[in-house]
Amino acid sequence: MSEKITIYDIAKKLNITAATVSRALNNNPKIKDSTKQLVLETAASMNYKQNKLALALKSGRSNNIGVIVPRIDSNFFASVIRGIEEELYPHGYQVIICQTHENPKRENENLYTLIDAQVDGILMSVTDVTNENDSAFRNVLEKNVPLIFFDRSKHIDGVSSVTINDFKGGYITTKQLINQGCKYIAHLSGDQSLEIFKNRFLGYKQALLDNGIEFSEKYVIQSKSSVEAGKNAINILLELETPPDAIFSSSDFAALGAIQELRDRKINIPQEFCVAGFSNEPFTKFMELSITSVDQSPLEMGRMSARVFLEQVGKTDTIKIEKKVVLAPELHIRKSTSRINS
Amino acid sequence: MSEKITIYDIAKKLNITAATVSRALNNNPKIKDSTKQLVLETAASMNYKQNKLALALKSGRSNNIGVIVPRIDSNFFASVIRGIEEELYPHGYQVIICQTHENPKRENENLYTLIDAQVDGILMSVTDVTNENDSAFRNVLEKNVPLIFFDRSKHIDGVSSVTINDFKGGYITTKQLINQGCKYIAHLSGDQSLEIFKNRFLGYKQALLDNGIEFSEKYVIQSKSSVEAGKNAINILLELETPPDAIFSSSDFAALGAIQELRDRKINIPQEFCVAGFSNEPFTKFMELSITSVDQSPLEMGRMSARVFLEQVGKTDTIKIEKKVVLAPELHIRKSTSRINS
Repeated sequence: MSEKITIYDIAKKLNITAATVSRALNNNPKIKDSTKQLVLETAASMNYKQNKLALALKSGRSNNIGVIVPRIDSNFFASVIRGIEEELYPHGYQVIICQTHENPKRENENLYTLIDAQVDGILMSVTDVTNENDSAFRNVLEKNVPLIFFDRSKHIDGVSSVTINDFKGGYITTKQLINQGCKYIAHLSGDQSLEIFKNRFLGYKQALLDNGIEFSEKYVIQSKSSVEAGKNAINILLELETPPDAIFSSSDFAALGAIQELRDRKINIPQEFCVAGFSNEPFTKFMELSITSVDQSPLEMGRMSARVFLEQVGKTDTIKIEKKVVLAPELHIRKSTSRINS
Repeated sequence: MSEKITIYDIAKKLNITAATVSRALNNNPKIKDSTKQLVLETAASMNYKQNKLALALKSGRSNNIGVIVPRIDSNFFASVIRGIEEELYPHGYQVIICQTHENPKRENENLYTLIDAQVDGILMSVTDVTNENDSAFRNVLEKNVPLIFFDRSKHIDGVSSVTINDFKGGYITTKQLINQGCKYIAHLSGDQSLEIFKNRFLGYKQALLDNGIEFSEKYVIQSKSSVEAGKNAINILLELETPPDAIFSSSDFAALGAIQELRDRKINIPQEFCVAGFSNEPFTKFMELSITSVDQSPLEMGRMSARVFLEQVGKTDTIKIEKKVVLAPELHIRKSTSRINS
């Protein structure tokens, strides 16, 4: 690597201190104009280039925003990021993205990487084992860098979040299955240590109770958000003495897997078995047997997270704003749960 | 924002120069051990924290790698990034991602953002109007930061690239349509200023010529990679005097749009009309009418790009390695082009 010209080189050439060079380059009023002029000319003649981040180290501003998501290859997270970019770009912010792959160690490293990259804020959706990373979160807050959770959030004092009403999402989806005449409704639940999955489950359970349907633990399968997990769930559920006649899945990918397995077994959807998912991934609409799913307004979620950041940036650490934004879920009813034309 | 302790504060307290403090903290052999000890103790007592990036500014190493893609919400780019991460993570590198949204201005800003963030290398797929950004690319190379193109590459002396054989991809797909008895094969071509799309088109054309089928410009529609663009293409093509009986699309999304429009018009696929795409996006497999598509080995492409980076990192600027890696495409034949069981 070729030798970089530093402020020390300029200082040596002019026989002044590096601090003076630095102040002159940063247009500090304490430095005489003649000195500033001399430093600027010397810097130019030596081909010195001020680094934006070196400046950021002093000013505390980089105009970069870090976004951390479990994965980028989900339409949901990609759309949230697009919303964040759309809102922040006109304010001169660049967005840099890291993914955790649901690995808390990666999440920890991402947090330190972004802080080291001098981001002005971190907007993130946590992994499901995020409680290991308390000191990394504390480090962000101690640096006075605004931290905002979206979708998958975590309770930390003074930290804002933007989520949807997952309880309501679970409730209205289950209610729609009941309206279609389904009596034995199973639930693919996702990791219950994550608030979003717990609330979808609680919404499901409440809808059953409110409609006089007995809740049974047997019908609840904790599964990952994958096609494979959905297939496996069907294999388990169809072995039950009274197999279910519907599934509300907390994940579109698991819903897709369930549908593939049901079709392989020649079970008619929706006549014999209804399936509903969550997240409104594009494929749910593209399928010939389109899949009922809950839309989480990801673009709006991203925009809202960005707006919460903009409100907080530049506030001193004596003012703590904690804002909880909850968006409304919207059920898109499609062929996979449409027995009755209504 | 609370005041940050800097090396200038430590220098002032000890009445030595900032340069000496900096050298002591960086364990420079020119500094006496007793001075180092004093500086370290004072720094600790003042709660001074060395910033990893401040160190990177001096050492020229951050262990961060920048990846720039047109969009993250495509399985192809997301998989390339996963390949890059899988290869680089064991070497201690963190990956930070930026997206251009096909906007050359964003691409330009992304390049400067990543350079300012002191990345050790940039792995990227260019936008389709990337020729505007020559000075930004030059800036990367002048900083002696390895630059590697994947998939969508650009000819720059000394810059490596990892691509697939797009010509062959276009050729084998068109050949398969011919084998199915299709005689009037249209092509949705993508932006011809991009090498990848030009080569897919040339492969298509060559396959026609090699099999005695006349090539006609009328059957070539330059379209974006979107469902809407595929629908529009069908509307144009079916108005022709001799409408086509097959489409080879350079994009899976446009192929999907074409299929949706054909189905709306009650045209049977594949009996009356065959459709093949490119990229092997997951939905091509998930559809009940699964879509024939070309796999581009995105994971392998990412891993290979990362390996090319690892070969180049740390090389001085007197050695320029230019490596062109070309991967083989693989055609996945599915229902949308399977008239004959063969």
